[in-house]
Amino acid sequence: MSVYRPKNRIQLLGWLVLILSLIHATSFAQNKATWIWYPGDFEIWLSNQMQNRRTERATFFPPFWRMDNPYVLVDFHKVFDLKEPEDVNIYTEGQYNVKLDGKMLEGYPKTIHVPAGKHKINLKVYAQDRVPAIYVQGKIIVSDSTWLVTNEDKEWIDETGKASDQSGTTWLQAGSWNFESPVQRPSQFRLATTPRQAVSRAVKGKGFLVDFGKETFGFIKLHGLEGEGIVSLYYGESEEEALSTESCETLDRVQVNSKQSIDSTLNLSKAFRYVYVEPSAQTKIDSISMLYEYLPLETKGSFRSSDEELNRIWDVGKYTMELTTREFFIDGIKRDRWIWSGDAYQSYLMNYYLFFDSPSVKRTTLALRGKEPVSSHINTIMDYTFYWFLGIYDYYLYTGDKTFIQLVYPRMQSLMGFCLSRRNKEGFMEGMAGDWVFIDWAENLSKKGALSFEQLLFCRSLETMALCADLLGNEDASKYRDEAKRLKSKIFSQYWDADKNAFVHSSIDGKASDHVTRYTNMFAIFFDYLTEEQKEGVKTNVLLNQSVPKITTPYMRFYELEALCAMGEQTYVLQEMKNYWGGMLRLGATSFWEEYNPDKQGAEHYAMYGRPFGKSLCHAWGASPIYLLGKYYLGVKPTAPGYASFLIEPNLGGLDWMEGKVPTPSGHIELYCSKKEIKVKADAGNGILRVRSKVMPYGKGIKAVEKSKGLYEIEILSNTDYIINYQMLSH
Amino acid sequence: MSVYRPKNRIQLLGWLVLILSLIHATSFAQNKATWIWYPGDFEIWLSNQMQNRRTERATFFPPFWRMDNPYVLVDFHKVFDLKEPEDVNIYTEGQYNVKLDGKMLEGYPKTIHVPAGKHKINLKVYAQDRVPAIYVQGKIIVSDSTWLVTNEDKEWIDETGKASDQSGTTWLQAGSWNFESPVQRPSQFRLATTPRQAVSRAVKGKGFLVDFGKETFGFIKLHGLEGEGIVSLYYGESEEEALSTESCETLDRVQVNSKQSIDSTLNLSKAFRYVYVEPSAQTKIDSISMLYEYLPLETKGSFRSSDEELNRIWDVGKYTMELTTREFFIDGIKRDRWIWSGDAYQSYLMNYYLFFDSPSVKRTTLALRGKEPVSSHINTIMDYTFYWFLGIYDYYLYTGDKTFIQLVYPRMQSLMGFCLSRRNKEGFMEGMAGDWVFIDWAENLSKKGALSFEQLLFCRSLETMALCADLLGNEDASKYRDEAKRLKSKIFSQYWDADKNAFVHSSIDGKASDHVTRYTNMFAIFFDYLTEEQKEGVKTNVLLNQSVPKITTPYMRFYELEALCAMGEQTYVLQEMKNYWGGMLRLGATSFWEEYNPDKQGAEHYAMYGRPFGKSLCHAWGASPIYLLGKYYLGVKPTAPGYASFLIEPNLGGLDWMEGKVPTPSGHIELYCSKKEIKVKADAGNGILRVRSKVMPYGKGIKAVEKSKGLYEIEILSNTDYIINYQMLSH
Repeated sequence: MSVYRPKNRIQLLGWLVLILSLIHATSFAQNKATWIWYPGDFEIWLSNQMQNRRTERATFFPPFWRMDNPYVLVDFHKVFDLKEPEDVNIYTEGQYNVKLDGKMLEGYPKTIHVPAGKHKINLKVYAQDRVPAIYVQGKIIVSDSTWLVTNEDKEWIDETGKASDQSGTTWLQAGSWNFESPVQRPSQFRLATTPRQAVSRAVKGKGFLVDFGKETFGFIKLHGLEGEGIVSLYYGESEEEALSTESCETLDRVQVNSKQSIDSTLNLSKAFRYVYVEPSAQTKIDSISMLYEYLPLETKGSFRSSDEELNRIWDVGKYTMELTTREFFIDGIKRDRWIWSGDAYQSYLMNYYLFFDSPSVKRTTLALRGKEPVSSHINTIMDYTFYWFLGIYDYYLYTGDKTFIQLVYPRMQSLMGFCLSRRNKEGFMEGMAGDWVFIDWAENLSKKGALSFEQLLFCRSLETMALCADLLGNEDASKYRDEAKRLKSKIFSQYWDADKNAFVHSSIDGKASDHVTRYTNMFAIFFDYLTEEQKEGVKTNVLLNQSVPKITTPYMRFYELEALCAMGEQTYVLQEMKNYWGGMLRLGATSFWEEYNPDKQGAEHYAMYGRPFGKSLCHAWGASPIYLLGKYYLGVKPTAPGYASFLIEPNLGGLDWMEGKVPTPSGHIELYCSKKEIKVKADAGNGILRVRSKVMPYGKGIKAVEKSKGLYEIEILSNTDYIINYQMLSH
Repeated sequence: MSVYRPKNRIQLLGWLVLILSLIHATSFAQNKATWIWYPGDFEIWLSNQMQNRRTERATFFPPFWRMDNPYVLVDFHKVFDLKEPEDVNIYTEGQYNVKLDGKMLEGYPKTIHVPAGKHKINLKVYAQDRVPAIYVQGKIIVSDSTWLVTNEDKEWIDETGKASDQSGTTWLQAGSWNFESPVQRPSQFRLATTPRQAVSRAVKGKGFLVDFGKETFGFIKLHGLEGEGIVSLYYGESEEEALSTESCETLDRVQVNSKQSIDSTLNLSKAFRYVYVEPSAQTKIDSISMLYEYLPLETKGSFRSSDEELNRIWDVGKYTMELTTREFFIDGIKRDRWIWSGDAYQSYLMNYYLFFDSPSVKRTTLALRGKEPVSSHINTIMDYTFYWFLGIYDYYLYTGDKTFIQLVYPRMQSLMGFCLSRRNKEGFMEGMAGDWVFIDWAENLSKKGALSFEQLLFCRSLETMALCADLLGNEDASKYRDEAKRLKSKIFSQYWDADKNAFVHSSIDGKASDHVTRYTNMFAIFFDYLTEEQKEGVKTNVLLNQSVPKITTPYMRFYELEALCAMGEQTYVLQEMKNYWGGMLRLGATSFWEEYNPDKQGAEHYAMYGRPFGKSLCHAWGASPIYLLGKYYLGVKPTAPGYASFLIEPNLGGLDWMEGKVPTPSGHIELYCSKKEIKVKADAGNGILRVRSKVMPYGKGIKAVEKSKGLYEIEILSNTDYIINYQMLSH
């Protein structure tokens, strides 16, 4: 490694700022301040902005569910104990007042002096257009998520008009993200951008077609605009789409009125690989470039193997995740750009094996839930409500962040209350007016009656409620556990068909159908609801049975392949990945799609929803190999919250070797695995490495214990390099 | 009457605009368009603005309860049947799209063409900082309150992605007010202003004291500002307050930095009669004037009598109401400027005898209620929740506006659900953490346990629920009626003390106290919960009993005097009015006060809440003679919703004569009454005139029926002038 040499002035400036802040931090030993707000409110505000940016052919296309709004008036407080007096700087978003020890300070103080000793500071902030937020910066006194915040400071005022603290007010811990300087105001939040150039350009018709080389996202910059008229921009994830001026999904018409040649950047970012640019008669344009827009995240997970196609699948999965992990985990970048709970749930799981970015999971979870009261399912979709619950327990398992469970638990309770109040007379959840029962985009998928799939997710959601209630010591735990138990037993009595050795799809007016689909059966496997015998039956009769309707979305392939992996079918699944995701790559995909049906031809692939280019070619749910490879090939997963303990169960699935990193809250678990050697290192936590070997695995500091014939377990301690020799035994 | 001669160019312009719009309206026979929004949302948005304008000595002083926020995304629609095609202009507040017959039109159309025939128009609007609103103007197609609006367009999308109408969405009738031109955008709403000059000015200390002659409200305009420094403005409702730079309740410090003499108008309006202006050393100011700020309302009610002091009381009450009837009915103009439900309830009643402005009642009712879910009492005060219910039935009785009841009924249900869920084990409402039990500002008033007063209001609220449910044909009517009946019977068994012939004040741990206060007893009278015998007992033992603690606020005097009037004690009440309100006038009041205790001296009168000028000298609840004189002296009240029928029962209460107008939804009821003659005219509705006379009343077209000894009833038909001769029989 050589000494770092700044390449340009911006980087040099960056270094200077870094050095200066280090000096500053050292000399003042300051606490670190951050902008704070009512928890969830910035997320709701930002999601309103994000989700109202969808356009369809230059027409505004907003969501079709209730969008909520932050509280306009919020009170923040914290008690500090100072050894020395200090001056504290105050910054707010909104109109405000400051109380020191309950006494209002005159005017709108920008700096306050706090004497030594114990003092309570309150800030009360009102803002209508932004989220009321504060940034408080002293030496000891700084704003951070340990402050308490309320939306309804119900001070109890007695007859004399004196305020006392006898209030019924709910105080929560403040919300925050990464707005760490006074000028970095939450209301000014924008994703990062960086200039990118096109890779090719060709004259077509009256205009020209620009190719940016791969799927991308950002703001088009127009160069050398001149004249009077309109420049039309037709966007395409495929060349066909960009050139189809009548049918492309998104477009812009830019009004030009300039006698001199000017540059102009569009206000609204778009997804595209290709852009067809067509100026009207009296206008001229030289070229276009773009500002790539992205959420700056470190890629903490990695995967490499002896199979180059698989490596390419992982890379394209990663890029798909980079594009769809933005203000929130969104579905796809071209069309909706909305937060869909079922899509986000998969993004969470992939995130744990790629970015391990907890703030993105929290932002998305809070934005999806919105405010009280619950008046419909999340995104109006019943299954999406349930995925929301499931995502929360996963979050706790992977991160160990109990604080977030505390915050979100009351919002879980009211959403579950909504569900429980909508059961039919058999106690099952069945679609009611305004409910969308989704499951998957699939032809001829019946949504009539009470579907076994929905009940299964419902049951898992109730179990999640019980787990979270237990975690918080909430007395409702047993109530939820009992509900889950009762429901599970009803699911088996109503839907399990012993002859077919599978769950049937639905029950109409209390009568079970005899139709079998994959969904319920595959979820039941990784929910671990089945006996070994039942699992084997499901595998043979459903999952590997070609007569059961095939799944054509990467969305449900995610779970299908997970179920097979959970049963040790990694070799089969590897081939499926190569066929299915490899199939997209062979068609030129540079990101993974919303849906892929190998039977289709040419531009047929781009059609969906009855529109020739309706399909999204960059859809988060397309990236599932990220998750499967991390969890079921590298085989790393937490066995206690936040990876306090973990299991590593590598499975080559036919590969000669593989290596990679799985991020954890305090570092990584790093793994190399061939048929003869495994190298492991975990930065934190203690885990178990599980290996199938023909011989007793050995190596320096290794003590393998044989758990059953050929199955060995080796204890892995943190911060230790292990090199294990073994001889792989196939599953 | 002479021909109107425009006095200045502005008036001339006004006439021209009027004439042009008449010509326009006639030639096109256009429907009348108005800005519309999700009902209640503009009101909530505006109340956030209004209620966050309070300052205390130049420091922001916001409310201490939850403030809500409008929905950010709203869909509007209406179906029209056109004989001829037409062009329709579209204006919105926010980003929007337009659908014609379910199909989105490209871009952001400003004009759309609608063919002849039946067509559905949808507009969907998103705005974060303003209330999503639309103004649609064709010939037949115009936006008005007949459009339907929803906050959660739960379109049901099937597998093919097609939108259908199978939705569970709630559609409500749109909200509107009086924004009747495209440029009159709801977000730009401001009250009217008009310039006013001070009446005197005197040098005091380093500055000068300005007197505007009477209590007023508006924006101070500074003339001839020059130099560099600060001009301080100290506001006073009294001269003492303005001169007390250390203790006046409101002040402004204006930064001056100008070498030339300039004028400047302040951004925040204030209440005052006096302003003490003090420039700092290096600054100069010539003078100040003001822009009086007001809600333009027609004064429809009137009252004149043989007693000049009483007339002055009515006039000052009217002015007090003018000042406190603003964006909403607020409490007082100097201090809170908030919407308090108990205060507003009295404003509603006074309004029915003064402005008869229904929009103000509706705005205030909607703003007070806010959004779901209910998490505290209105203004955090238990009694204020109940007054909110009471106000709604009164509104229906006076206006006959069932549409509003329909809108607000679900919001009534959830608020009542909140109340019902908070009863103690005896079924009474008792203050819980976060609840403020108010009743009145009075010394030594116990708030412990379950107060009989709160139960009485609770019972009346349940009765209101039943009445509204009945009106709407809602099946919950009997549930509420039963609850009310049970509660009423418990109130009598728990609180009625047969020995004292009165309700006792409270019940602590199920045990009734023996303390008697006026509140419950006087309300029981005009709620008509008592037998005649019980009423007489209450009158003697409580209302006219000097040993029962006196009431010192006009707020509760309102009800005390109403109870006495309801029992025919107009002569006594007239003297009380002259003593109490006349007392304020004799102290120089130009508007009525928040509290008045005749025993106090000089500037003692201005103190409250432990602050020397804490008292509001212009408080809506001070204006109750407006209501009492209209309802119990002129004696006019509706006996069927909206004055479809009415009762006129004049009572001179010792006056020689009185005359006045009482507004009704479609005009007035006009009355003159002396001891010998009554003149009546009602613009609409049919009523009864009830007169106590020594002789059979007579006159042209009069047919009096003697109902009991000396009590006559005469039928009053609409649009007929009656002159009735009689000989007054004292009560």
